[in-house]
Amino acid sequence: MDDNTSGKSRLTLLGLGAMGTALARTWLAAGHPLTVWNRTPSRAEPLAAEGATVAGTAAEAVAASDLVVVCLLDDASVGEALAGADLTGKDLVNLTTGTPAQARARAEWAEERGARFLDGGIMAVPPMIGVPESGGYVFYSGSRALFDAHHSALAIPAGTAYVGEDPGFAALHDVALLSAMTGMFAGLSHAFALIRKEGVAPGDLAPLLVDWLTAMASSAYELADQLQSGDYTKGVVSNLAMMVEGNSTMLRTAEDQGVSAELLTPFMALMERRLADGHGDEGTAGVVDLLTR
Amino acid sequence: MDDNTSGKSRLTLLGLGAMGTALARTWLAAGHPLTVWNRTPSRAEPLAAEGATVAGTAAEAVAASDLVVVCLLDDASVGEALAGADLTGKDLVNLTTGTPAQARARAEWAEERGARFLDGGIMAVPPMIGVPESGGYVFYSGSRALFDAHHSALAIPAGTAYVGEDPGFAALHDVALLSAMTGMFAGLSHAFALIRKEGVAPGDLAPLLVDWLTAMASSAYELADQLQSGDYTKGVVSNLAMMVEGNSTMLRTAEDQGVSAELLTPFMALMERRLADGHGDEGTAGVVDLLTR
Repeated sequence: MDDNTSGKSRLTLLGLGAMGTALARTWLAAGHPLTVWNRTPSRAEPLAAEGATVAGTAAEAVAASDLVVVCLLDDASVGEALAGADLTGKDLVNLTTGTPAQARARAEWAEERGARFLDGGIMAVPPMIGVPESGGYVFYSGSRALFDAHHSALAIPAGTAYVGEDPGFAALHDVALLSAMTGMFAGLSHAFALIRKEGVAPGDLAPLLVDWLTAMASSAYELADQLQSGDYTKGVVSNLAMMVEGNSTMLRTAEDQGVSAELLTPFMALMERRLADGHGDEGTAGVVDLLTR
Repeated sequence: MDDNTSGKSRLTLLGLGAMGTALARTWLAAGHPLTVWNRTPSRAEPLAAEGATVAGTAAEAVAASDLVVVCLLDDASVGEALAGADLTGKDLVNLTTGTPAQARARAEWAEERGARFLDGGIMAVPPMIGVPESGGYVFYSGSRALFDAHHSALAIPAGTAYVGEDPGFAALHDVALLSAMTGMFAGLSHAFALIRKEGVAPGDLAPLLVDWLTAMASSAYELADQLQSGDYTKGVVSNLAMMVEGNSTMLRTAEDQGVSAELLTPFMALMERRLADGHGDEGTAGVVDLLTR
């Protein structure tokens, strides 16, 4: 692009929510000429002051750059925003949150329109964007050629992790990690509920929880090893029989503390099913079998 | 005791399951004269060969030392094993897994019999005992005088964390951490189930999960801060409204992948209840309110 005096490639960004705005700022700060568009135009004003070119329509924004990044509310918004745009020869990077199936369908849709497609799953919240030490990163999957061609621009807001040509894999990895986190958050809620009526300050429990969960997170390696080998007893130290025993202490404690155990009981029930089916010498890997239809 | 040629204090240990045996070995290896007892005597034989004195009855074992450590199957076993023992003047350390209420009742029971009482919750599995770099440790609560008098012996099998005079606090902390871990394990099971039918190896997902959960565990600090201040919007980056939006992507993905979402839905339902009650700008701290009766 002829206005690219910085030597950095021009980008277009559609979507200026909290995440889109954070992305825009890091690209502008890094010297990338940037064209932005947002359905509600007022959100683009502060970025215009920082040097962004504001396009009047999504189609105009798309026309301005070879690399088009989309960070909208949901997959339906992507289809709506790009409906009137000419995608021929474009490199489309979709950072909109969605499912693997949505990413796969969107990839096909983009390819039909003559674009290369890369899907991204952002493992960061907006304040982590442009802050490498925050550890935030983006899963990418889809066109490897697109990823390689634009890696230097893509690496500016956050670290990158390319996870495969299948355009659904970025969302799959994203959702897998968020799902695991949801379970951990449920566990944290239960833990803090247990101490609520006692003279233990949440702030005193927090560092103990962080250290313990950090240490125990590494059991994901053993679980993966068991699932991959098919030998669910491999490396097991606390087996299901022992864990189910421990569950009864957790349940009695919850009852005594006046805390509903509803966040823990579904997992405990699956552990008990595996135990009843004769798998007492295994770890929890068999629960994965029970979850998969 | 006159046979204490090592200068290390004599201990008695009741209970030689996997954990008791590991404890016994570290004390013997550290030069502590040790008297052991187990309901099934054969489990004591290898320890006798390593230098332990094997008592014929629990009462004899208790009589042999001032410091008596109990690591049995459950609280009822503690009552049974010690029924015939003279506890007058003894220092009783109970490492048997139990609830806070059981620990409090057992403390009262021990004091009525003339003993000082300390309860312990072991945050380690047997292979971590005597291995300082494993990070294993024991929560202790109850008699501070007992804890201080025997700290050097107690610190040999694992690190020590004294959490208060209330004899129930060790078990409370123990159960809180195990409960949080149970939630995390549930989340891990769901995550691995999601990739089951895809070309993603569990061993490739594991390090990503470990890094992510380790990073996200620190949200326990924000949660504690919100609970302690009563301001559930404090420091919130992803609020409930955004998280509930994200939940629908997780649920659709689970559905598409043929994975039951039963381990995540109870927490999501509580998030939705808080959102419906007008707390969309908060984080998840309000879920703790909903769990507490």
